[in-house]
Amino acid sequence: MARAGRRPGSSSTADQILISARRLFADRGYQATTMRAIAAEAGVNPALVHHFFGSKQQVFVAALELPINPAALVGRLVAAGPREQLGERIVRTFVQVWRAPETGPQLQAFLRGAVTEDGAARLRHFAEDVMLPKVSAAVGVPKIRLAAAVSQLIGFALTSLIIRIEPLASASEDDVVALLAPSVQRYLDEPSSS
Amino acid sequence: MARAGRRPGSSSTADQILISARRLFADRGYQATTMRAIAAEAGVNPALVHHFFGSKQQVFVAALELPINPAALVGRLVAAGPREQLGERIVRTFVQVWRAPETGPQLQAFLRGAVTEDGAARLRHFAEDVMLPKVSAAVGVPKIRLAAAVSQLIGFALTSLIIRIEPLASASEDDVVALLAPSVQRYLDEPSSS
Repeated sequence: MARAGRRPGSSSTADQILISARRLFADRGYQATTMRAIAAEAGVNPALVHHFFGSKQQVFVAALELPINPAALVGRLVAAGPREQLGERIVRTFVQVWRAPETGPQLQAFLRGAVTEDGAARLRHFAEDVMLPKVSAAVGVPKIRLAAAVSQLIGFALTSLIIRIEPLASASEDDVVALLAPSVQRYLDEPSSS
Repeated sequence: MARAGRRPGSSSTADQILISARRLFADRGYQATTMRAIAAEAGVNPALVHHFFGSKQQVFVAALELPINPAALVGRLVAAGPREQLGERIVRTFVQVWRAPETGPQLQAFLRGAVTEDGAARLRHFAEDVMLPKVSAAVGVPKIRLAAAVSQLIGFALTSLIIRIEPLASASEDDVVALLAPSVQRYLDEPSSS
């Protein structure tokens, strides 16, 4: 599976851009890092960064080395059916990509890394600067309620795929959806209490 | 704060018992490890293991180096008020002990360690062999639903205290309770779907 947000092309130039991007995102954070600064750090023309990756968000997701772009994926799930079943679509897709041999191991490695200072900073920037604003705008739900939904999903990944607590670890996809989807849907439905 | 499940006494003998217990729990798992085997491994009389720790569960919790005994804590919360507010009591207490300076840092270190093979095995044994059976018997809820509640609580700890995603990380205790308690209560209330 191709890395999310990355176009085919010269791998050494693209890799150099990603190395520079990782350094700048880590040092300055997501907001303060510009496409121009990434290009300067990599010693290439800014047009080349746009050519390889398209947008700053896509550079960032590529730099994270995620096998999927969760923000783009949720955007597609919002459009794929009725709003009152969005929680179910999100939980089902989440279980599928975290359990699939093409995407699961890389996602699990990413989650394992999130307990380190650097890994936590990357995931925090991604959630606060890309994922939560984008999804909040798309579905009209306060960011704190989306963060609660994320906490349920990441908690499921941690307990069932990394700690592997039974009977959750070997539960069928349908059973996990029946168990978790109403909680995720509730976070998407109710008005903010804060 | 005294380590949970540990009585005052000779620290070198108690420490030797814990070192032996950790080795046996890691090698054989919780079920197959007996108080007698722990005593033999530590080169002490089995009565001394009972004297210091009381029960195998208490040796195990002490060997985990948790600042609290979650299974005992949930037992007290079940008895502390009406069943329909148990989710709220659990979430409120969870937020308090994970944020308190006396207990929070040790719990966070434990959770960070849970992404390693050894740390995951310890937490898995604790959940499967101590926590879930004990709480399931106390509240009459299927283990898979309790595991779902655990996944929400651990996911909150990971996203808000370790990854520190805003606006969840700095939300007030009351806001976190309003947000998460209905989800936890739902896991405790509904019949199993599996």
